[in-house]
Amino acid sequence: MTGQEQRWPLEGVRVLDLGQLYNGPYAGFLLAHAGADVVKVEPPGGEALRDRGGGQPSMALAMLNTRKRGITINLKSERGRALLFDLARQADVFLENFAPGALARLGVRAEDLMAANPRLIYASGTGYGLSGPSRDNLAMDLTVQAVGGVMSINGTEDGPPLKAGLAICDFLGAVHLYSGIMTALYERSVTGRGRFVEVAMQEALYPALASNIAGLYRNGWKQPPRRGNKHPNRGSSPYNVYACRDGHVAIISVREVHWTNLLKLMGREDLLNEPRFETQSLRAQHEDEIDALVEAWTSRHGRDEAVDLLREHRIPAAPVRNLEEVTADRHMHERGMLHDVDDPILGRIVLNTSPLRFAGTPPPEIGDWPDVGEHQVEVLHDWLGLDEAAMKELERDGAFE
Amino acid sequence: MTGQEQRWPLEGVRVLDLGQLYNGPYAGFLLAHAGADVVKVEPPGGEALRDRGGGQPSMALAMLNTRKRGITINLKSERGRALLFDLARQADVFLENFAPGALARLGVRAEDLMAANPRLIYASGTGYGLSGPSRDNLAMDLTVQAVGGVMSINGTEDGPPLKAGLAICDFLGAVHLYSGIMTALYERSVTGRGRFVEVAMQEALYPALASNIAGLYRNGWKQPPRRGNKHPNRGSSPYNVYACRDGHVAIISVREVHWTNLLKLMGREDLLNEPRFETQSLRAQHEDEIDALVEAWTSRHGRDEAVDLLREHRIPAAPVRNLEEVTADRHMHERGMLHDVDDPILGRIVLNTSPLRFAGTPPPEIGDWPDVGEHQVEVLHDWLGLDEAAMKELERDGAFE
Repeated sequence: MTGQEQRWPLEGVRVLDLGQLYNGPYAGFLLAHAGADVVKVEPPGGEALRDRGGGQPSMALAMLNTRKRGITINLKSERGRALLFDLARQADVFLENFAPGALARLGVRAEDLMAANPRLIYASGTGYGLSGPSRDNLAMDLTVQAVGGVMSINGTEDGPPLKAGLAICDFLGAVHLYSGIMTALYERSVTGRGRFVEVAMQEALYPALASNIAGLYRNGWKQPPRRGNKHPNRGSSPYNVYACRDGHVAIISVREVHWTNLLKLMGREDLLNEPRFETQSLRAQHEDEIDALVEAWTSRHGRDEAVDLLREHRIPAAPVRNLEEVTADRHMHERGMLHDVDDPILGRIVLNTSPLRFAGTPPPEIGDWPDVGEHQVEVLHDWLGLDEAAMKELERDGAFE
Repeated sequence: MTGQEQRWPLEGVRVLDLGQLYNGPYAGFLLAHAGADVVKVEPPGGEALRDRGGGQPSMALAMLNTRKRGITINLKSERGRALLFDLARQADVFLENFAPGALARLGVRAEDLMAANPRLIYASGTGYGLSGPSRDNLAMDLTVQAVGGVMSINGTEDGPPLKAGLAICDFLGAVHLYSGIMTALYERSVTGRGRFVEVAMQEALYPALASNIAGLYRNGWKQPPRRGNKHPNRGSSPYNVYACRDGHVAIISVREVHWTNLLKLMGREDLLNEPRFETQSLRAQHEDEIDALVEAWTSRHGRDEAVDLLREHRIPAAPVRNLEEVTADRHMHERGMLHDVDDPILGRIVLNTSPLRFAGTPPPEIGDWPDVGEHQVEVLHDWLGLDEAAMKELERDGAFE
């Protein structure tokens, strides 16, 4: 769009990514796919996602670690820690999502790393942050969903509080962590100095509850019942997910014309002047009746047929798609977000690039995900100029295996 | 931690925030709370969140727009558009989340803005992006949840696909949009030139489905049934949300000792050598039986009492809290994330700062959210040096109201 040179935004930025599972690794993924040189640092044997039964890595490991190079460091050895410090002197970013204090207990303290390299951005992703009374509470995606309020607003009125089906706290934390890193990198271009940045998953989640907290406020600061797929504040109807012959369709009515068009499409012109359904607010009051009416129509149609008809009649609607469909999405494949990949270990899979698009520069190739320690020689040579003899000595001294 | 001066990372950065509802405004919020000068640009009368019945703004408007200054511009008038271009020449960032092509149809085209100011970062947040066959599909949080796969993995096996209770696509899109802006700002410090950045909500959502897509892969690329609060891949038990006398508690067993400690806590030492429950994998096979066992215990206790007992016995557990509790969370208040505020319009509410924490600099004050056009005079003076007479003329010519 603007005739940029073919340059990736983070070319020349060096990252030590000590991330594990989802939170840290997705921050590192965004750095790698924006062009940074990201080195994934794992303990000997690899991080937790490496073995999800039978020595087979989780496909999530592949999704979150493409374009990274892999090395191992044994942080329990003095030589391993010294090696990490040597690398940190050459790095722009050091990121990790260990529990608060875990790295420091091994002797790797943020203040020492930043003293060794005052330009270093040190980024910490945790469940609750590095201060405060909840600091050391268990922080898995599930527990943060519980204490953070997600479960209380997800699900149906007659069912229990329900966890969101995706690891939303991990990923909201991760992209905020990337945000903090980039903010600090920008600041460094002004001040010349690094920063210690931290993001707590619970805090990264909180603003995403804005519409729910607005509902709490409107309800006199008392939590309203869960509403399943219905309008959260009983504000309009139809607004729901409706069963079709072979799936489901989401339908929303925002304006008057959506409702009248829907009546025409369903062959229910007899209801055009029905006083009970005359306004948005009246229809919302009769939502169960309207939902039954709409589902009587959708259940006679296939999902895609229903969506086509609804769109033709300019009624807001969308098909409920499963992950087989999402990973095959023609639109995301055409845009270069998704790629079919023949992975030497996992076989035929779909991998994605970054959601951040910079006009004028195509996204970099998806690239490979590293095997444990795959780039040990290459990285230690590139970053530290070590030769084979020096590396053998480090290995002998237990810095890595 | 590192003796930084008391400086906010984005001091001196000027932002035109044409965001509306959640997606754009949260990106602008993160900029404002990192220290940027963010001007919220609204049409005369204000954006959609300004009136949620009775002329009362949504509390979400307050949550997402603190520390911004507010002006209005009538983009349907030529003078209004010219004023926007004048401001864009002084800006570092221009962000908007209109539907694809909507601003261009008004005569405000990204390429013209960037030609007028080659250092400008132009950031576009949309549902599906600015290219590809789905570009113009309806993009509300609900429809993106439907087509993006969230509904297919949220809910219970015997229930319908369920939308996540929070506006997850809006917010994942928003924080990726902020990420794109910061990446481009950093790049500009190297190249001296701006960038056009775009983020699609559907693409911002996709990586957050990594664990679900890994489950799809493990299941032979066929979507497994929804699992409610149970372990997504039948990998361990107990792993669920259990009813207490007065609420719910989430309990997870990761290691053998969690299970044996739980049996002791529940007074069920008789099951310590039960062959059916001998390994994680055997327990997972008998998850319904184990869930009944655990709930028989939790249902005899209050939620907080159960959590205390579980934590004392070092069993991973967390209370399911509602939003009244979350907004009152002592930890987040102590960390300065949440603040009780007496709002002149909304009354006593809780507002939050940014999840991005930079050591050495306390987060800025929460600040106020702007009334429609509240800072018209101030901003046009600060950014453009306009005097009262010039502003009166602009108003007379319809640039704003």
